[in-house]
Amino acid sequence: MALQNDSFLQACRGVRPAHTPVWMMRQAGRYLPEYRAIRAKVSFNELCRTPELCAEVTLQPIDILGVDAAILFSDILVVFDALGVPVIFDPAPRIESPVRTAADVARLRWGDPREDVAYVYGAIRACKAALADRVPLIGFCGAPFTTLSYLVEGGGSKTFEHVKGLIFREPVVFAGLMEKMTDLLITYLKGQVDAGVDALQVFDSWAGALAPEDYREHVLPHLHRLVTEVQTAGVPVILFARGNANILADVATIPADVLGIDWSIGMDRAIDVVGAERVVQGNLDPTLLLSNKALIERRARAIVESGRRAKAHIFNLGHGISKHTDPALAKHMIQVVQSA
Amino acid sequence: MALQNDSFLQACRGVRPAHTPVWMMRQAGRYLPEYRAIRAKVSFNELCRTPELCAEVTLQPIDILGVDAAILFSDILVVFDALGVPVIFDPAPRIESPVRTAADVARLRWGDPREDVAYVYGAIRACKAALADRVPLIGFCGAPFTTLSYLVEGGGSKTFEHVKGLIFREPVVFAGLMEKMTDLLITYLKGQVDAGVDALQVFDSWAGALAPEDYREHVLPHLHRLVTEVQTAGVPVILFARGNANILADVATIPADVLGIDWSIGMDRAIDVVGAERVVQGNLDPTLLLSNKALIERRARAIVESGRRAKAHIFNLGHGISKHTDPALAKHMIQVVQSA
Repeated sequence: MALQNDSFLQACRGVRPAHTPVWMMRQAGRYLPEYRAIRAKVSFNELCRTPELCAEVTLQPIDILGVDAAILFSDILVVFDALGVPVIFDPAPRIESPVRTAADVARLRWGDPREDVAYVYGAIRACKAALADRVPLIGFCGAPFTTLSYLVEGGGSKTFEHVKGLIFREPVVFAGLMEKMTDLLITYLKGQVDAGVDALQVFDSWAGALAPEDYREHVLPHLHRLVTEVQTAGVPVILFARGNANILADVATIPADVLGIDWSIGMDRAIDVVGAERVVQGNLDPTLLLSNKALIERRARAIVESGRRAKAHIFNLGHGISKHTDPALAKHMIQVVQSA
Repeated sequence: MALQNDSFLQACRGVRPAHTPVWMMRQAGRYLPEYRAIRAKVSFNELCRTPELCAEVTLQPIDILGVDAAILFSDILVVFDALGVPVIFDPAPRIESPVRTAADVARLRWGDPREDVAYVYGAIRACKAALADRVPLIGFCGAPFTTLSYLVEGGGSKTFEHVKGLIFREPVVFAGLMEKMTDLLITYLKGQVDAGVDALQVFDSWAGALAPEDYREHVLPHLHRLVTEVQTAGVPVILFARGNANILADVATIPADVLGIDWSIGMDRAIDVVGAERVVQGNLDPTLLLSNKALIERRARAIVESGRRAKAHIFNLGHGISKHTDPALAKHMIQVVQSA
């Protein structure tokens, strides 16, 4: 069935829709009282594993804020269920037994996400039914490097010494892990397409942990394979490598349909780097949503204007929305973009 | 008296010495067993406030590793003694009562660093005496934005929502605080020159917290004033703005004698951005020191080669050395650079 609002998908395909489409990373989340009401009843882990509740929170920003796309409520680390690695959210993700030695690596299960993470596919079907073709649904995964980093570090990190130590001391072991993780994520994402998502976003949230030279050598080839293999499933792929806009030129060598831009670079300059023939997504600093209507309006309009130089532009934040955001200000930003 | 090894100062002045001079950020620190032996006896706060012990740890890497410059052992936050704001190190710095409201701001004391932080000047004199002109001594401070960020956030932060909220909601209050902090830091640094330092480094460690546009508007003018006023005291000033190499072109508009480069950008590209007429310092990823001699040698040599394109080059890490570093590997890197 045709979507009632396909502005987001048009932009993904490089066609300029009537208005700049807009959605927000982490738009289904803690800044919404309606989300907090559900989280008061179930844990984060339980929520991720309950398709009906996933659908409910996924649709909240569509109903409340009027964004042009829904993104599945889930977490990049649920895929660890296919590895037999439990993740604790308190609220930051933590892994009790990080994978750092050959013995740790040998213990990984490398199961089939189609079975082990089947609840995600259930959630996608529930979302699609609830959306009733109002707006498209975006599925997602963490990129191989980001996913592996969590596995090796055991959580977030300031220095990423464990995973970088692995790269520098055991490059062959690391490459083998990246290979397997990429395979797993390809299967996982193709399953999401089969379940009904209209687009996919790959989050390389920790891309900034590596110097450009190391990112090019140890990460980029795997990311390239992930994106291009998944594109054969027929939906557009957005690639968002965050944390070091210096690697943007390298990231742009991957033929993702859309390149996500974080807030650390001006949109004008980002378009200079990736080329005006690409579709870009971004990039308002989410902290600006903690300011006021006038400032938000000025900065959002400036990004929309810059975005007109690209082949097409999907407006988004340059990182996930803050839990301290007033939903009324987020809604204001969305309306400013849609009417700009 | 003339320095026995003035390679570092020659490079600061834009003259290429016989070998590329090298020192390491946080070179007097926890990776050295000799440092840990002293810290087993005194707290971090006590160490910072005891000139003789400061001199002892400041000299350790000179004796043990053979670096070409000493950097005063201290902390960028001791200057808060002049504000009447206690800092707790456990081990990351934490401030019990962050400065976030007009009432908080009114409580700040804005004292005279020459009195309130006099122990730093004592430490500088002790270092100079102990060094006996073997190598130059570098003094330092945190940049106005980084220092204020600690004050407002109450410690480190992933999102810097408090200080950015202040910038976006109360730009006039923020600018007033930056003005006063800049004045305080100018006095503090000029006092360091009077006490005997041969060069100064300004650390804008949290520069990456702001989008380029905001850094340009709210930070750069104050940083420019700090650097140029301090330069009139007659020693070279190194400016190290870390965390977003996208702002490097803007940072380079400040006529600092040396521009510090972090590891997030290739040295070749950094020189393209700042211009080959500038002196650069950097930029080996400190995590590489956790690898092995062969890899360290290859990567250090490549940076030395790139550095030959600049007017002069001081080799350094692209961020502070990790506490997990084997001193023997650090020493190997230093010898590779000095003989390259």
